[in-house]
Amino acid sequence: MFPLEQGSGALNVFEEMESEVRSYIRSFPAVFRKASGYRLWDTDGKEYIDFFSGAGALNYGHNPTDMKRKLIDYLQEDGISHSLDMATEAKERFLQRFRDAILKPRGLSYKVMFPGPTGTNAVESALKLARKATGRQTVIGFTNAFHGMTLGALAVTGNKFKRKGAGVPLHHAVTFPYDGYMGPNVNTLTYIENFLKDSGSGISLPAAVILETLQGEGGLNAASEPWLRGLAELCRRYGMLLIVDDIQMGCGRTGPFFSFEPFGLKPDIVCLSKSIGGYGLPMALTLFKPELDLWSPGEHNGTFRGNNLAFVTAAEALRHWENGEFEADISRKAKQLRNALNIIASRYPALQAEVRGRGLMQGIAFEAGIAERISQEAFKRGLVIETSGTDSEVIKAMPPLIIDSEGLSEGLRILDDSVKAAAGSMEAAVIQ
Amino acid sequence: MFPLEQGSGALNVFEEMESEVRSYIRSFPAVFRKASGYRLWDTDGKEYIDFFSGAGALNYGHNPTDMKRKLIDYLQEDGISHSLDMATEAKERFLQRFRDAILKPRGLSYKVMFPGPTGTNAVESALKLARKATGRQTVIGFTNAFHGMTLGALAVTGNKFKRKGAGVPLHHAVTFPYDGYMGPNVNTLTYIENFLKDSGSGISLPAAVILETLQGEGGLNAASEPWLRGLAELCRRYGMLLIVDDIQMGCGRTGPFFSFEPFGLKPDIVCLSKSIGGYGLPMALTLFKPELDLWSPGEHNGTFRGNNLAFVTAAEALRHWENGEFEADISRKAKQLRNALNIIASRYPALQAEVRGRGLMQGIAFEAGIAERISQEAFKRGLVIETSGTDSEVIKAMPPLIIDSEGLSEGLRILDDSVKAAAGSMEAAVIQ
Amino acid sequence: MFPLEQGSGALNVFEEMESEVRSYIRSFPAVFRKASGYRLWDTDGKEYIDFFSGAGALNYGHNPTDMKRKLIDYLQEDGISHSLDMATEAKERFLQRFRDAILKPRGLSYKVMFPGPTGTNAVESALKLARKATGRQTVIGFTNAFHGMTLGALAVTGNKFKRKGAGVPLHHAVTFPYDGYMGPNVNTLTYIENFLKDSGSGISLPAAVILETLQGEGGLNAASEPWLRGLAELCRRYGMLLIVDDIQMGCGRTGPFFSFEPFGLKPDIVCLSKSIGGYGLPMALTLFKPELDLWSPGEHNGTFRGNNLAFVTAAEALRHWENGEFEADISRKAKQLRNALNIIASRYPALQAEVRGRGLMQGIAFEAGIAERISQEAFKRGLVIETSGTDSEVIKAMPPLIIDSEGLSEGLRILDDSVKAAAGSMEAAVIQ
Amino acid sequence: MFPLEQGSGALNVFEEMESEVRSYIRSFPAVFRKASGYRLWDTDGKEYIDFFSGAGALNYGHNPTDMKRKLIDYLQEDGISHSLDMATEAKERFLQRFRDAILKPRGLSYKVMFPGPTGTNAVESALKLARKATGRQTVIGFTNAFHGMTLGALAVTGNKFKRKGAGVPLHHAVTFPYDGYMGPNVNTLTYIENFLKDSGSGISLPAAVILETLQGEGGLNAASEPWLRGLAELCRRYGMLLIVDDIQMGCGRTGPFFSFEPFGLKPDIVCLSKSIGGYGLPMALTLFKPELDLWSPGEHNGTFRGNNLAFVTAAEALRHWENGEFEADISRKAKQLRNALNIIASRYPALQAEVRGRGLMQGIAFEAGIAERISQEAFKRGLVIETSGTDSEVIKAMPPLIIDSEGLSEGLRILDDSVKAAAGSMEAAVIQ
Repeated sequence: MFPLEQGSGALNVFEEMESEVRSYIRSFPAVFRKASGYRLWDTDGKEYIDFFSGAGALNYGHNPTDMKRKLIDYLQEDGISHSLDMATEAKERFLQRFRDAILKPRGLSYKVMFPGPTGTNAVESALKLARKATGRQTVIGFTNAFHGMTLGALAVTGNKFKRKGAGVPLHHAVTFPYDGYMGPNVNTLTYIENFLKDSGSGISLPAAVILETLQGEGGLNAASEPWLRGLAELCRRYGMLLIVDDIQMGCGRTGPFFSFEPFGLKPDIVCLSKSIGGYGLPMALTLFKPELDLWSPGEHNGTFRGNNLAFVTAAEALRHWENGEFEADISRKAKQLRNALNIIASRYPALQAEVRGRGLMQGIAFEAGIAERISQEAFKRGLVIETSGTDSEVIKAMPPLIIDSEGLSEGLRILDDSVKAAAGSMEAAVIQ
Repeated sequence: MFPLEQGSGALNVFEEMESEVRSYIRSFPAVFRKASGYRLWDTDGKEYIDFFSGAGALNYGHNPTDMKRKLIDYLQEDGISHSLDMATEAKERFLQRFRDAILKPRGLSYKVMFPGPTGTNAVESALKLARKATGRQTVIGFTNAFHGMTLGALAVTGNKFKRKGAGVPLHHAVTFPYDGYMGPNVNTLTYIENFLKDSGSGISLPAAVILETLQGEGGLNAASEPWLRGLAELCRRYGMLLIVDDIQMGCGRTGPFFSFEPFGLKPDIVCLSKSIGGYGLPMALTLFKPELDLWSPGEHNGTFRGNNLAFVTAAEALRHWENGEFEADISRKAKQLRNALNIIASRYPALQAEVRGRGLMQGIAFEAGIAERISQEAFKRGLVIETSGTDSEVIKAMPPLIIDSEGLSEGLRILDDSVKAAAGSMEAAVIQ
Repeated sequence: MFPLEQGSGALNVFEEMESEVRSYIRSFPAVFRKASGYRLWDTDGKEYIDFFSGAGALNYGHNPTDMKRKLIDYLQEDGISHSLDMATEAKERFLQRFRDAILKPRGLSYKVMFPGPTGTNAVESALKLARKATGRQTVIGFTNAFHGMTLGALAVTGNKFKRKGAGVPLHHAVTFPYDGYMGPNVNTLTYIENFLKDSGSGISLPAAVILETLQGEGGLNAASEPWLRGLAELCRRYGMLLIVDDIQMGCGRTGPFFSFEPFGLKPDIVCLSKSIGGYGLPMALTLFKPELDLWSPGEHNGTFRGNNLAFVTAAEALRHWENGEFEADISRKAKQLRNALNIIASRYPALQAEVRGRGLMQGIAFEAGIAERISQEAFKRGLVIETSGTDSEVIKAMPPLIIDSEGLSEGLRILDDSVKAAAGSMEAAVIQ
Repeated sequence: MFPLEQGSGALNVFEEMESEVRSYIRSFPAVFRKASGYRLWDTDGKEYIDFFSGAGALNYGHNPTDMKRKLIDYLQEDGISHSLDMATEAKERFLQRFRDAILKPRGLSYKVMFPGPTGTNAVESALKLARKATGRQTVIGFTNAFHGMTLGALAVTGNKFKRKGAGVPLHHAVTFPYDGYMGPNVNTLTYIENFLKDSGSGISLPAAVILETLQGEGGLNAASEPWLRGLAELCRRYGMLLIVDDIQMGCGRTGPFFSFEPFGLKPDIVCLSKSIGGYGLPMALTLFKPELDLWSPGEHNGTFRGNNLAFVTAAEALRHWENGEFEADISRKAKQLRNALNIIASRYPALQAEVRGRGLMQGIAFEAGIAERISQEAFKRGLVIETSGTDSEVIKAMPPLIIDSEGLSEGLRILDDSVKAAAGSMEAAVIQ
């Protein structure tokens, strides 16, 4: 028995009342009721495997038991729900846990800022701080980068459709080619450095570079280790701060807690959001080196900086990182995912199928139009999986990190069927 | 017995780990543990009356029983926690309730957009839409306005300190004087219209005007009814959209659900956040006339648009608005508040004490420096109350709307004592 | 006999080849052949009195004999024509004369910059320098100001039609109301200071104010002495540089060499162009206090900074300022002009005729549409006179400063007839 | 006998009175008195050969006899000196001659705009028109481009030192690499097209590309024919207008009247200035295809659009283009220049000497610091020659186009000596 009033199961209320701006409801047209781990159910009782993970906000799966219990206890005890940036026990526990489980073991001494509970707010605060600290204004963003929808974050976002939505020109940013943008044989750092070193290039010295180590929205482009190290070195040489936007790639999505760990980077500023709250609750952090903590009190603020329900689950979520098991487990499943995607892709050379990504953020790029059909076919078959890329050219497998081997296999089986259904006929047409 | 691990009760973790940007923790230096209704308790067991209400996010008080029960039930049933903008039962219920309890009775037919769960995100989406719909770029903001910390919202915010934090010049906005800015005898609309109608004024026709009917952060300046009606008429004549930022003043803060209801305004776009979630949980809405729903799917998006825990409590919160009792009750308490503040203010003519505000958002403006001391004195005495104004010149009484008469009286008694303590000696000095 | 090949006397070549952007040729549709003093002749031999003076570039009249002789001598001796910013004898003579006849007697010690030979270039260099010297970016411009057509100058220009021509939004400037803009009883400095002193006004401290003491293009609005002195004081208090754009009003147009002399102003930066070259030849100067000379060599440059033919005539023109006679003579003729305009205006109360301006830059404002018809009627009768104001609402009498009493009387007689012809019937209609 | 008052021959007046912004006077520290053809004389009677040509404004040499006679006749006849954009005989003659000698023979049907008499004004008007015609805002400029000092032109200029002089961020422009910028093996058009075609590149579709076919200020970089043709094709495909800034390269500097003629380009807009006036007098033109003539009357204006003395000499100068002899003659001298430079450069392989340029705009690039010393050595020896490049790394030979073979040889002999003096010891040091 379900004690809540039940919805209609139909989408008419949404169609009647919600703005045309709605999007995922169009790709996944069902009314969802409940969820657990890597599974969701709609109001008709249909079950779905989740290869989407709330766009990265549900790395620990839906309604994980331990966090849920903590949350209910906290509610029952009338714990503080909302505190702006006042001190609460829940926030204190989170900070301690974050220091002890994340920062200390990695030799990081970042100061922690709560910039408002969304990714775009973390990015905006990072950009402000970089400009304040350097006295410079321009920030380097990359082709196909995605950093958020508010004007500051949008200015360093590559997607032209989203940028146009601003309705005004976006300034104080310059876009440079990401690793691989000019093909496999061109090191785009050369291009960037030419502009930096040349007194006639028209680009004033930038305050910062904002970087995703793997572009989750922009087509699963993964920067190579040499390129990342070279970029960090470039930042050092030209006095630019290195901001890593780890909003989607952090919290274990690519394996380690921070996506940049394997490459030896020590970013000046790090943005976290999405899964940092643990339970899908809004929360974000901006981390920076202590010497950059040049903020005046209240210089950046926001009403929901103190979402204590998120602090409760976030602190609990960090238990996953108290030893190396979770990361090792992700790594094992990442290999399983890679192998399966390789097999699938190898069947469609005519569609230029190409496996991309890292960790549990991998997918297959296809010719235009195919990935969207795969997503539709998968949804019919009970798999929630979205596309990536400004032309939706990549099918992106992004299961919860806690998925078990059976769940992963089951999801991949459905994906395989869906690729067949979507791409098969097309390939046939191409081959003929 | 309190089953959660308890914090230290001291602030050292915050001082060690949190950025210098933290602010309220400096005004209210305690570690809070629990809260209920209009009361909070810190880890030392000290009790506080809340005249702050989470800066307007806790209009229904802390942990209201009905919402809490719904929330716990929802969690226990594994209801969807995070859904981006997919359809869920919780969201459906919220939309229905919002239509039936809020929009329909007021003859409003707004489309509803979920722009990301913070006020600044609602403002950014409103500005984007206004620019898209009109093809114009400039937006009129007002002196002492506060609309948010991301670059688009900051450009229409008056506070110079916050603006400077941007680190870059803010564009595509023009600041005009709010009602009363040039003194009681000058109608600032004349000033605005001069600039609009004159072909030599240097101001291109604006896309929109963004308005707070009462400036909660900017010093409790309340626009008069004739000025508000005149502004709406100005918008009509010059094809500018009227955006009401009701993030702090909506949800009953000034009495009616929307602050603009008593003045007969029908804004083109309305921004809601803060108390719309009911329980202090991050949530925001952008409402607009159906003919303005010109968004393309996904043109503005965000990870935490689907904070379903907030939808659950938000739907429950709207029960307060199913008949007129709640509004009438606020009105009664607002009068009690007004009377008390008048009495207090009347004692300090030499300090130029002036009562300001509307509904349960009222305060007393003083000469510089006094209001901050009042806030400190009050905190010592167990009352959480903040200041308003870019120079913190106003002490702002903003209790939860559900406060009872006793709570209100008790808080006002402490406030009275605190004013005496803070201002008394100073007044003496002035009088001598 | 006229030894040059003669033109057709018709406008077809212009209509065929020249862009639609051409403007004065539409108001004054004749092909001009020669000119002397305050008279012009077209190819049909028709004679015109000039009350236009090349929009202020011909204060000394057409082809003044002494300058012409110097110019021809210089050409015959193969004097340097073009020198960028290298040293030439002609430039040296000009600098000495400018120092001795203009700066020294007025107690001014300005450094002299040759910014390129047009007014807009002088303005652009002044704005750059003010921003460099203060480290601030915003510049205050005034309603109905006119400073030039390049993007920097356009940003401080009020005319919306010209601004729109930019095709991009114009930034780093804010427009405030000029003296009288809010009616005779409002001191607009109060508005400005409110925005400057208030920490919530959204206006960051400006680098400079750019000012015309009399708005020649914007409708002949004349700032009063108290307002000008108050503005200078405001600049002092807020660390803003005072830039006087004396491009049209300098060189004696309002009487003294600099228009600001009678008001005791000592601007930080002064822009000169138009009549500084003496003979209508392109030339401009940017003057500034020695402590502001913070330029690096070549930081602002331009090909035609060294127009030596202009230096030759400019040096000769400065002989007019070696004693006070010229200024006294302008003053006498300004009174004659004032009296005549007063008499004309007094006949048309129903058309709200209002005499405006100063010195030999005076005119009559009328209801919309009338001034343009007056200009047309005058041209038919042999008087070249243009309108002013963004709606061309003012007929502007602007004869060469060297005009004699007879010429002035004759021009005014034609103007009187033209006003009768243009306005008479209209007034009749209004009176009935 | 020299009838004018003579200068002191010393630089003290300039040092006392002129701003620190002065530049060429520092490289060429003499006071010049007269000039003829390719020769100048200073006040000490020292003679100089001119390999500088007023930075391209004196292509026809100093004080050419025919133009001088026309000019003196015109002055003696009291021809109109200054006419804003009214019609005059002098302007009519220029337009006819320009049509008949330049446009018609080249099959061009451009409309002619007089945008104010400086290059930067022509560029500003071109950018405005491109934005108006396309409804787009961004304009592509190139690395090391030079287009002018006013804010619109500066935004498409590459030189960082000049850009910084703006004192404000420069917007609505994006810098792409010029031909050869990434080395000889990279076609930079590929970079540009990647950004244009990719929906995630962050660059909105530009209104226009502004191009110098040879970068006169930016280091004598010459774009290749395939690159130029490819760029024109790119403009066509993406609906961008092609603006050629031929201010320095037009009027025969590279051989043909327009520098783009040999490459089969038909630019949408062309900017001309510098030598268009013939005698070094300020003048500029903006040419555009008739379908782009979307200006409203007066949308862009300026006081010195009607510099009739320039029209007189400009019309006379166009006689050089009535047949092909002048172009052929330039071509012969260009070869002589090339050969000589090749010989000089071949002596300094250790200094990485590299011959660059086209037509009578050629030079030798060296390691940093050498070219400036060559210029100094040459000036001592009686040759005026400047450097090019943002680091002044190129010695630029740019004689008047009318120079005879003897003059050219003599200048080159001095140049050779100067290179020896400046570079010799350095090379020795390098070789050891």
